[in-house]
Amino acid sequence: MQGLRTFPPLDKCMKHQDRTGPPQGTIFDIPTPSLTLDLPRLERNAAAMREKVRQLGVTLRPHVKTSKSIDVLRVLTGGDAIPITVSTLAEAHYFFEHGVTDILYAVGIAPAKLPEVAALIRAGCRLKIILDTPEAAAAVAAFSDANDLPIPTLIEIDTDGHRAGVAADDPLLIEIGRALGGNRAGVMTHAGASYDCRSDDETVAMAEQERSLTVEAAERLRAAGLACEIVSVGSTPTVHFGRNLDGVTEARAGVYAFGDLVQAELGTCAIDDIAIGVIASVIGHNRHHGRVLIDAGFLALSRDRGTAGMPLDWGYGAVCDAATGELLDDVFVSSTNQEHGIITSRSGEIDFDRFPIGSRVKILPNHACATAAAYGRYFVTDGSERVAATWDRVNGW
Amino acid sequence: MQGLRTFPPLDKCMKHQDRTGPPQGTIFDIPTPSLTLDLPRLERNAAAMREKVRQLGVTLRPHVKTSKSIDVLRVLTGGDAIPITVSTLAEAHYFFEHGVTDILYAVGIAPAKLPEVAALIRAGCRLKIILDTPEAAAAVAAFSDANDLPIPTLIEIDTDGHRAGVAADDPLLIEIGRALGGNRAGVMTHAGASYDCRSDDETVAMAEQERSLTVEAAERLRAAGLACEIVSVGSTPTVHFGRNLDGVTEARAGVYAFGDLVQAELGTCAIDDIAIGVIASVIGHNRHHGRVLIDAGFLALSRDRGTAGMPLDWGYGAVCDAATGELLDDVFVSSTNQEHGIITSRSGEIDFDRFPIGSRVKILPNHACATAAAYGRYFVTDGSERVAATWDRVNGW
Repeated sequence: MQGLRTFPPLDKCMKHQDRTGPPQGTIFDIPTPSLTLDLPRLERNAAAMREKVRQLGVTLRPHVKTSKSIDVLRVLTGGDAIPITVSTLAEAHYFFEHGVTDILYAVGIAPAKLPEVAALIRAGCRLKIILDTPEAAAAVAAFSDANDLPIPTLIEIDTDGHRAGVAADDPLLIEIGRALGGNRAGVMTHAGASYDCRSDDETVAMAEQERSLTVEAAERLRAAGLACEIVSVGSTPTVHFGRNLDGVTEARAGVYAFGDLVQAELGTCAIDDIAIGVIASVIGHNRHHGRVLIDAGFLALSRDRGTAGMPLDWGYGAVCDAATGELLDDVFVSSTNQEHGIITSRSGEIDFDRFPIGSRVKILPNHACATAAAYGRYFVTDGSERVAATWDRVNGW
Repeated sequence: MQGLRTFPPLDKCMKHQDRTGPPQGTIFDIPTPSLTLDLPRLERNAAAMREKVRQLGVTLRPHVKTSKSIDVLRVLTGGDAIPITVSTLAEAHYFFEHGVTDILYAVGIAPAKLPEVAALIRAGCRLKIILDTPEAAAAVAAFSDANDLPIPTLIEIDTDGHRAGVAADDPLLIEIGRALGGNRAGVMTHAGASYDCRSDDETVAMAEQERSLTVEAAERLRAAGLACEIVSVGSTPTVHFGRNLDGVTEARAGVYAFGDLVQAELGTCAIDDIAIGVIASVIGHNRHHGRVLIDAGFLALSRDRGTAGMPLDWGYGAVCDAATGELLDDVFVSSTNQEHGIITSRSGEIDFDRFPIGSRVKILPNHACATAAAYGRYFVTDGSERVAATWDRVNGW
């Protein structure tokens, strides 16, 4: 465990205004809590997904809600111009301003957002939206007519009973397809229920269910004389475990870029593939209760308890040696308050000498998307302690 | 339920760059999701706490981690210059820049942060820090000596076994007190276990336990010849239910400013006192599963499940009519994904006509601190639909 470093001199004190300044030195020089991104791991995860989707014979449309960073996207694409998925219009603006033109906004459209959608389309963005009701379809068609502007729209299909969408065999599907008229661009789904799968075989089956029901929806539309060009599916687990994507045109996945503890338990990555971590300082010992306190609480780690229902519950995060990245698997972040994390031992006994006051640890997140959202930037490391760059994120709405 | 509004004209489309612009109109004109703050409720909550602490005969040191806003603080103080509590050094910088001088940073100090602390003190900020180990006390004393600068420091006392601190009767208390030397400024505690109390009587007893053990720690220090000027206690529940604060010099509380569903269940506020809410749009209907989809997911509402263990579980938030504020108590936000919230009915039956596509709802949070942290600003309302101002927050570290 890395011990307490010498205090930096006063004239190197980071002021409030300098918080967005360039990185200096190592992960032992940055403020805590901070978010780090291991570039070699990101590159490895990106290459694996590109190869997987190449084998499946479809287009990769990565979901950038995980990273919200053009620099991360450049690694994901491997240099190609590829389409992306976004979760907010703030992301759509940001990535379009950085040169990405084919963007799917994959959250059901609120009609009040259509003017902002239209402005992006008029500026040259090939933005697409989604919906799952005749009412929303009528609103899009009316807006499109009134503004003489096609709004390419995918119909969201419910393939797993998990969240949103219209079922492939629901009469509403055809009604929505008709209501959209010339704005109809295809169908899409997200089998979020894949996160509830507890074996590879279950996830393989879920991937096939996601594919087959979405293709069925597309075929029903076509049989009704309604063109359906795009057939879009995906989640990190279903793309990872998918065997074939016949009839599908594109696959979406997001969290594969970083991986996390939930993904490790689902089998889509190993713990050693997790590319982000929160660097925290040890700030206290409660010896009577066997607790090490760190300065990363639920704002720094998120309240996500994604591993709570999984075989191994990591609490609010797994603890690693900050210097070596080695997983300390007998301890975990068992509880959090706003700016406090509490590390306890699974055995009940904790060796306080491994966590000196002022030493640093790296916390791996349950859910990368949730944890990263608390930060405005990544401290990008080269796989060692060294910070090579800072990359910004686009948060908010 | 407020229906779908007419689309704004294209030239009023909010662009990315305009997202921080001044407010216009009502809560039906702002983007969704957005955070609203009901000013009359905030004023009422602020006045009630000032009166409570006046009766207790101590100084109020509000915790600004809830609001992170100088505008909110001005309401809390009622115009007086009062001391504050912060949870990050970013807050300390921000409030000091806005004229607040007496600031307690109430998270155990990481020695690497001492240069930043010293810079604030040298600039005129009466900043105080906390710690609970002899190692941290030695680091503060060494830093203070090396820089010839007193660093006023409170010793954190564990009065409830909940989180951090040294017990009042632990020999370490005197050791820490001696190690601090001239930096020793007092003792402090936070009885977070008050959140586990399930009756007023339990919370009254917890408040007395918080008081008596902290005063005992102060008296032990004094008996050992170690001055102990400040005796600081508090949490919103223990201050609300406290009967006397003999021996205490100041009380800290934060979330009382806004209230939330957890506080309502603890009895420190009523649902009608909750001053913040998230305005969200209805974006989809999953009729087969009885779900209304909104565009406020776990980033907009937070993953906090504070009411999960309470008599009434509000899921990820309570749903109100956006226009009237009326609580729709038969429904709640039962699950969330990153940008999706799912409203379901407690009875299993949901009336979709009450939630037309494009209509808006207001979601009350489980935990105000967690939910507010996702936003850079408040849309401040005058108690009606009208947005009267926007107030900024200082997030991050």
